[in-house]
Amino acid sequence: MPEFDLVIRNGTVATASDVFQADIGVRGGQVAALARGLGPGAREIEAGGRLVLPGGVDTHTHIEEPRSPPTASADSFASASASAAAGGTTTVICFARQSAAKSATDAVAEHMARAQRSRIDYAFHIILTDPTPEVLERQLPALVEAGHRSLKIFLTYEGARITDAQALRVLAAGRRLGALVCVHAEHHEMIAFYTEALLAAGLTLPKHHAWAKPMVVERECVHRVCAMAEALDTPVQIFHVSGAESAAEIERAQARGLKVWAETCPQYLVLTADDLDRPGLEGAKFLCSPAPRTVADQEALWEALRRGVLSNVTSDHAPTRYAGPDGKTAFGEDAPFTRIPNGLPGLAARMPLLFSEGVSKGRIDLQTFVAITATNPARLFGLDPRKGSIAVGADADIAIWDPTRKVTLTNALMLHDNDHTPYEGMEVTGWPEVTLVRGVPVVEGGALVGAEGHGQFLPRGPYAMIAPRGVFPTPFNPVDRTLL
Amino acid sequence: MPEFDLVIRNGTVATASDVFQADIGVRGGQVAALARGLGPGAREIEAGGRLVLPGGVDTHTHIEEPRSPPTASADSFASASASAAAGGTTTVICFARQSAAKSATDAVAEHMARAQRSRIDYAFHIILTDPTPEVLERQLPALVEAGHRSLKIFLTYEGARITDAQALRVLAAGRRLGALVCVHAEHHEMIAFYTEALLAAGLTLPKHHAWAKPMVVERECVHRVCAMAEALDTPVQIFHVSGAESAAEIERAQARGLKVWAETCPQYLVLTADDLDRPGLEGAKFLCSPAPRTVADQEALWEALRRGVLSNVTSDHAPTRYAGPDGKTAFGEDAPFTRIPNGLPGLAARMPLLFSEGVSKGRIDLQTFVAITATNPARLFGLDPRKGSIAVGADADIAIWDPTRKVTLTNALMLHDNDHTPYEGMEVTGWPEVTLVRGVPVVEGGALVGAEGHGQFLPRGPYAMIAPRGVFPTPFNPVDRTLL
Amino acid sequence: MPEFDLVIRNGTVATASDVFQADIGVRGGQVAALARGLGPGAREIEAGGRLVLPGGVDTHTHIEEPRSPPTASADSFASASASAAAGGTTTVICFARQSAAKSATDAVAEHMARAQRSRIDYAFHIILTDPTPEVLERQLPALVEAGHRSLKIFLTYEGARITDAQALRVLAAGRRLGALVCVHAEHHEMIAFYTEALLAAGLTLPKHHAWAKPMVVERECVHRVCAMAEALDTPVQIFHVSGAESAAEIERAQARGLKVWAETCPQYLVLTADDLDRPGLEGAKFLCSPAPRTVADQEALWEALRRGVLSNVTSDHAPTRYAGPDGKTAFGEDAPFTRIPNGLPGLAARMPLLFSEGVSKGRIDLQTFVAITATNPARLFGLDPRKGSIAVGADADIAIWDPTRKVTLTNALMLHDNDHTPYEGMEVTGWPEVTLVRGVPVVEGGALVGAEGHGQFLPRGPYAMIAPRGVFPTPFNPVDRTLL
Amino acid sequence: MPEFDLVIRNGTVATASDVFQADIGVRGGQVAALARGLGPGAREIEAGGRLVLPGGVDTHTHIEEPRSPPTASADSFASASASAAAGGTTTVICFARQSAAKSATDAVAEHMARAQRSRIDYAFHIILTDPTPEVLERQLPALVEAGHRSLKIFLTYEGARITDAQALRVLAAGRRLGALVCVHAEHHEMIAFYTEALLAAGLTLPKHHAWAKPMVVERECVHRVCAMAEALDTPVQIFHVSGAESAAEIERAQARGLKVWAETCPQYLVLTADDLDRPGLEGAKFLCSPAPRTVADQEALWEALRRGVLSNVTSDHAPTRYAGPDGKTAFGEDAPFTRIPNGLPGLAARMPLLFSEGVSKGRIDLQTFVAITATNPARLFGLDPRKGSIAVGADADIAIWDPTRKVTLTNALMLHDNDHTPYEGMEVTGWPEVTLVRGVPVVEGGALVGAEGHGQFLPRGPYAMIAPRGVFPTPFNPVDRTLL
Repeated sequence: MPEFDLVIRNGTVATASDVFQADIGVRGGQVAALARGLGPGAREIEAGGRLVLPGGVDTHTHIEEPRSPPTASADSFASASASAAAGGTTTVICFARQSAAKSATDAVAEHMARAQRSRIDYAFHIILTDPTPEVLERQLPALVEAGHRSLKIFLTYEGARITDAQALRVLAAGRRLGALVCVHAEHHEMIAFYTEALLAAGLTLPKHHAWAKPMVVERECVHRVCAMAEALDTPVQIFHVSGAESAAEIERAQARGLKVWAETCPQYLVLTADDLDRPGLEGAKFLCSPAPRTVADQEALWEALRRGVLSNVTSDHAPTRYAGPDGKTAFGEDAPFTRIPNGLPGLAARMPLLFSEGVSKGRIDLQTFVAITATNPARLFGLDPRKGSIAVGADADIAIWDPTRKVTLTNALMLHDNDHTPYEGMEVTGWPEVTLVRGVPVVEGGALVGAEGHGQFLPRGPYAMIAPRGVFPTPFNPVDRTLL
Repeated sequence: MPEFDLVIRNGTVATASDVFQADIGVRGGQVAALARGLGPGAREIEAGGRLVLPGGVDTHTHIEEPRSPPTASADSFASASASAAAGGTTTVICFARQSAAKSATDAVAEHMARAQRSRIDYAFHIILTDPTPEVLERQLPALVEAGHRSLKIFLTYEGARITDAQALRVLAAGRRLGALVCVHAEHHEMIAFYTEALLAAGLTLPKHHAWAKPMVVERECVHRVCAMAEALDTPVQIFHVSGAESAAEIERAQARGLKVWAETCPQYLVLTADDLDRPGLEGAKFLCSPAPRTVADQEALWEALRRGVLSNVTSDHAPTRYAGPDGKTAFGEDAPFTRIPNGLPGLAARMPLLFSEGVSKGRIDLQTFVAITATNPARLFGLDPRKGSIAVGADADIAIWDPTRKVTLTNALMLHDNDHTPYEGMEVTGWPEVTLVRGVPVVEGGALVGAEGHGQFLPRGPYAMIAPRGVFPTPFNPVDRTLL
Repeated sequence: MPEFDLVIRNGTVATASDVFQADIGVRGGQVAALARGLGPGAREIEAGGRLVLPGGVDTHTHIEEPRSPPTASADSFASASASAAAGGTTTVICFARQSAAKSATDAVAEHMARAQRSRIDYAFHIILTDPTPEVLERQLPALVEAGHRSLKIFLTYEGARITDAQALRVLAAGRRLGALVCVHAEHHEMIAFYTEALLAAGLTLPKHHAWAKPMVVERECVHRVCAMAEALDTPVQIFHVSGAESAAEIERAQARGLKVWAETCPQYLVLTADDLDRPGLEGAKFLCSPAPRTVADQEALWEALRRGVLSNVTSDHAPTRYAGPDGKTAFGEDAPFTRIPNGLPGLAARMPLLFSEGVSKGRIDLQTFVAITATNPARLFGLDPRKGSIAVGADADIAIWDPTRKVTLTNALMLHDNDHTPYEGMEVTGWPEVTLVRGVPVVEGGALVGAEGHGQFLPRGPYAMIAPRGVFPTPFNPVDRTLL
Repeated sequence: MPEFDLVIRNGTVATASDVFQADIGVRGGQVAALARGLGPGAREIEAGGRLVLPGGVDTHTHIEEPRSPPTASADSFASASASAAAGGTTTVICFARQSAAKSATDAVAEHMARAQRSRIDYAFHIILTDPTPEVLERQLPALVEAGHRSLKIFLTYEGARITDAQALRVLAAGRRLGALVCVHAEHHEMIAFYTEALLAAGLTLPKHHAWAKPMVVERECVHRVCAMAEALDTPVQIFHVSGAESAAEIERAQARGLKVWAETCPQYLVLTADDLDRPGLEGAKFLCSPAPRTVADQEALWEALRRGVLSNVTSDHAPTRYAGPDGKTAFGEDAPFTRIPNGLPGLAARMPLLFSEGVSKGRIDLQTFVAITATNPARLFGLDPRKGSIAVGADADIAIWDPTRKVTLTNALMLHDNDHTPYEGMEVTGWPEVTLVRGVPVVEGGALVGAEGHGQFLPRGPYAMIAPRGVFPTPFNPVDRTLL
């Protein structure tokens, strides 16, 4: 009888700390043994010359959120989870959205139902767009207890944004309940002011989306969010940092001892505002918020990743169809930038882009790649030690990479349900050939082999707010915190 | 026939640039000649051994604003202008307040009527608490044209505060019309959050006022205001900077080329939060917003004044009576800090405190004293070359100081109509013995000699937004400013 | 036949990335397997309830350097390696010192001979005090080729220090040969100036040692070293950072993209300048360079460790005897601070102090502890993947800690050959109970069980200059580097 | 009998503080009266439509220093003082150079003799290249007492540079005697290292001079000098700041409360390193140290001037002939950059360039122009109140400018004795038409009218080290300063 359900043999294993040669023995969906020359497995994968990496943890993804065209999500859990696995990702945290029309409890229940079809494991951030006392005091405690230990708020977007007064209530609730608050940080009123001026001037092209939200809009809000977190002595995660000024603001907050973490996304590392100015309406495929910036901002973000100012990289996957049913664009030929759906698909492209632009081009080392795509997000959101690394007892969420394989990205390779990828035609070096979730292949050799429903919900217990680099939740603020 | 209406003889004259021995000849209310051994004057003042300084320009004063007790202003224009002169100040800019119930035009007209009794010259900042299109587009152009070239907005205080969306409209109007926008910058929602928590915990003493608005509340808002000014490429003046963190934020803005100026006030240079904790309700006499901070913050503010990060010092004069008609405190014995009137009297004390703590103690030199009390505020608000210096053709607004005289401050010396001064009992070295407005004595030897109504309204023409230190209004922002 | 030479069973294993329950199977001195329920070992250690951590890597130690009393090293390789193991350290890098009287080749050969007695593994930094072309161009290439891939220079200390011109030559040689240059950075001339003034004034006590080298002395030199590294586009490691200003300087260098790393030592985390002022000559036991600073500096260093600005913690072990042969102090009762030997013993205390003050007190998490005591120094100095972590194929250098054990530090516990420890009487929580080098116990239950000579020399191959956090050696300097 | 020796009528007078219309009455070489409609003068100058500004004070000039060709000074005091006056400058501080071969006393005496021919007033900085105890303790006290209250040291240049140990002695002497120390701050050893590498590679063109001393070379030394000044709690002036990094370093020093002042020069505001790459050997005309940098550095310097980080602008006038006696270049056709004389002529061009690029182009206002060319340098070096402003009792050192006149710069206009100006062909807007020294015209309508020997030596008394912006010499360093 084979000793293991699966043995991955002869690969080069990497964690956020180490790189070593070893076989991996999987039993019961977990890593059971790391050694050389392990006994037989019921199944065996030869990984000589390959990198055996922790499956990616993508903690910022919009999956199957209910919306109408043209902003309807192009993905279901079935397709999105396939797409994630295609790119070496084995866990996603996506969003369950509470709104004025809906209780947080219902929002989570409904999203939980949709997620049944997922092929990979998942958890939820609860988006709060109407954080009433009812929600914060009656619904959230049970939800957090049930393992939904992170909240998301928007400070911009009509219909989604909350006020600073509400944000403070959410931060206080997060502090009280032990749930990490994540923030989309852009100054709403400046965007509105710019947008009105641009529309009035007839400047309505996709590229004007970037004009409507220059860097100052994000930098302001990053500072404000850090200040509110400071005032309440509570941790916070800043979403999708897009450039140098915001990264500098985050570093200032960290330097004063605040428990502020932040992510960036591939679109801010490989795209620029110029992509929004492609011919015709092609620029619409690159329209996201914040907008991509400059090459100098890209390099600043790489530096911030190297130095640990930014600690993870997520996709902010938010796919919408470019083509409408009539063969024209889904949003109409004359749509001003304000009516073009925001957001890019990115689940599949995230890790290959990071690997290629980061590891293959020598910007980061392999351990850093593992840290920012898997280990750090897992620790930050309480998924460790089950997820985010290859260690005895961890889930056997593993991607086997050919580090030298050159692949030209196409929409078909993304395995999502969308009609385009913004990275079409880009060549990457390094590709995940097999992706396993709890020891079971989901994508193998580019083919989807994982079943719908293989994914499991990941309840998260009370977790220490510990920075990937070790920033510890020591008290730092002289105000009488017992009041808060 | 005497050559001059007045000759001030043998004094040591100081400007923001120079210190020199000269007689000053006054004719028609203006400085007509500077020389040694001037011909005779109809009146002569011997100033040997005295400093002859430009009369102070206090650009942040609340005078006779209509309110009910206990927040009713304790001063009328008659008394406030006497108090200003007692302290060597010859020009004030005070506030005409527009509100939802009132047009800006009416607010200015009414305040203009009240100001008829002023003994010294004056101008107005227009407070906008309800900046509707009607106000911004129909009323303001004429008011600015009439010489009211500065606007004031509050970002905190219920009933006074405006939203960021409104603030952007005001900044845009200021930019378009050439009016400088001044901002009370504190994050309203954090204050409200803290206040609610404190009151709920029964922490209601005067000292808890400072707990309700720690430094982060101000620092956040300073950064936000600078960001909005950056977004609109328009100058801004930050009011009453209270400590190190805000000063650092302002310096960062200046370093990126923004046209940001800022003031502090004597209460932040000589008081601390501990003063709010004096026995009984005495602390109420020190309750102002922002709250006084720490000794370290005081030193940081002095350093910021020396380095030009802060360019002027104003009183934020806002007197209310401590004693009520019943002999108890005006605001009741059990009033929580939220019901104690905000604001301190300071018109008379401003310059003696600055002189004593600054010049006499060696923290700043005489030229810097002149700059931050007279020349800089005059230039910043378009009152130069008429006000703020001693130069040929300027108004003969002059204070003659005995730099060595030691005076113990008392409420009586303030010549205001209030029942207390927070500086009671403090000893200063250096005192203004004579204060002249356009050559006419208003206070002399501690006695009020100036007539009600001697003061004139000072209309301000289009003025260059030039920093006292020479920061020039060159374009700096890559956005398409023609839109704004 | 047992499957393994040794099995450590049921422990909680930690790496810089992960914490997990697993048995460790050791074969041939290496970690052969990580799993639960491993097969039998020839020897077994039960580690339930214990932490199983990588043995420490202490990359800054002075061992058996030939000097005369009173500065004679109190330790031999035999005792120093015992002391290291007593504190959970399994690898040291110590110094082979080239001087005008000696070739680098001879210095290394002689030190290699002395090190034969070491009980734990070791490598050398080559100190260059007379970096002639002969040394740099003829001797160093072969030495580096033989695995001595790091150089140490002093910028202060008469007899040891080199000039900036020489330092540039050494940095260029390090760049050319692929050897990392480490620097003792203090401004020699300022120290000399202060020292002369202090001695002239009769201020000669141990505490005046700290007066002679205030923080500015170190901060200046840190900036200068970073600038020279920038000019030559070459990596550098700053030794023993003692306080906030230097840490800030290092962060500035890192933020501009420089490959600058830095360490601190326990003495800067738990001692202050006040310790130098203990009664009588007791202060001499705390005299080291740089001098310990303030409590605020300690906290700044913890913060810098948390944020990755400082990446490792070493002992700077440099023991000298306090008592002389006559029972009095070794350096004489009237010795001014300039004649008191510099340096503290620290090999044994390093990790327990870090664990107790760091992990037990909640300042850092367990992964960070592993990173800064083992993984980072191993990677920085090219000892990985053999040293610094617990991974398949790595040397079985392991310390088994009782994280809750309270121990009062005494000189006897240090197992060194010195007559005192500066940490006498300090209580720590957490203690290494067993220390294994390549699977062989060296210290067990407080008893020395490891044989002299068990230690092996560690030649280091060409290694990537990769920061622990992933800073990659990309070019950054526009000068024509082909010239350098 | 005319009331005044001279009346300048109807001009617009500017000081560092004020701009006003007034006549100026001059008597006995001093400003006797400022008024409108002054009585008659023996001589009258109509200045309607003209700016009447304080004569410039140029505090960094090399005049008639004894050297041999090709580095021989192209100017004598007769010609240099004419050139200064041609550009509106009325006072120079130049250098008397002590060296190993010469006592400071003799150096000053000899230079005093040479300066007899000056047409404008002058003072000396004493360059110390061999600051022996004899010089510092025996010669300097008398020289300082005689009014030579500033010292200059070089930290680079073979033959001129002193060590840091010597620099500390000089700073201590300056502190003790009340003499301000000025520093040429570049890291000598880095320059030597680069230079050797460049020459070895055959990179010997004028442009390679800039390669040999990139910005890091200056930034390093600026920080080091500030640190030494901090250690000794003594003021210091940094010479010729050339770019952004150094300015940032100076601002950091000022922000920590240090009494650090700094100048820049026109060559760093209007030239760039590209000028050194002009065809043939033309680049040699732009070779100076530090080297000109980039356009971004120029803008950073303007910003630093606006914000007061840099407080004065000097010429660093150092003219050498381009053409040799044989019609070829004075330094030979094949001279590597190391043998091309360093330094540019700039006495005449300084103020017109500043006026045109600064005031006419809107980068600075008129008061700032006066401050940085006259008032600040006069105050910083103890020449006020006699020099640097237009005030009653001050010397009538005045330049009358046509602010709208366009002039194309030519070598002839410079009125110096050199054969070229680096600014040949540059067009400026604004020109000094008349320059008066103590009321006597030296240059008028472009013609030299002032006599040799009209200039007077300016002894300087003990002066307060007061920053132009008011930085006051309060103690700031916790070391026991009584020792120093």
